[in-house]
Amino acid sequence: MPTYHAKVFVTLKPSILDPQGRTVERALSHLDYANVSGVRVGKYIELTLSGERAEVESQLADIVENVLSNPIMENARWELEAVPMQEGREVAGA
Amino acid sequence: MPTYHAKVFVTLKPSILDPQGRTVERALSHLDYANVSGVRVGKYIELTLSGERAEVESQLADIVENVLSNPIMENARWELEAVPMQEGREVAGA
Repeated sequence: MPTYHAKVFVTLKPSILDPQGRTVERALSHLDYANVSGVRVGKYIELTLSGERAEVESQLADIVENVLSNPIMENARWELEAVPMQEGREVAGA
Repeated sequence: MPTYHAKVFVTLKPSILDPQGRTVERALSHLDYANVSGVRVGKYIELTLSGERAEVESQLADIVENVLSNPIMENARWELEAVPMQEGREVAGA
C-alpha cells in the first residue's frame, strides 16, 4: 500500500495574541537582536499515512481540522509527499 | 532597510521519544485512523528581521541554534524570504 509523509503547519490567526511569541521576542531584544519582530510560535507536525492518495488526502484534511488544530483560533495548512516504496521503513537522518 | 520573513522548523531528533506525538497517534487510532503512524510534534516559528541579507542570515542561524532550539535534542532548519518593500507593514490574511 502506498505510504505518504505529511507535514502540517499550525499557526495562530493573526488577530490572536501570542504570549509565547512575545516572550521570545522580548528575550531576543534583551540579547541585542533588536531588529527582530513579529515572532509567532506555531506547531509543526509530521505524520505518516498509508492508503490511496485521494483517501489519505481527505483523511488528512479531517485530522488537521478536527484533531491537530483549533479552527477558531488557528490556521492550518499541510503538505503531502509520497514515500518511495523502498524507503518506507527508513528513518530520516539525525 | 530590507526586511526578511523567516520560517523556522524545530523537530525532535529521531532518537528522542516524543510523548506528545505518541498521544496524538493514540488518539487518532481511537478515532479509527489506524493507518496513521510516526506522529512527531515540533515547533514552527515565524519571525521578521530587518537588515542586510548576509547579516540577517548569520543572526538567524545564531537565534535558531541558541534561542529557538536545543541542539542536543532537536534538529532545526530555517527558510528566509525577502519581504517586498511595499508589503513590509502589511499583515498576512487571516
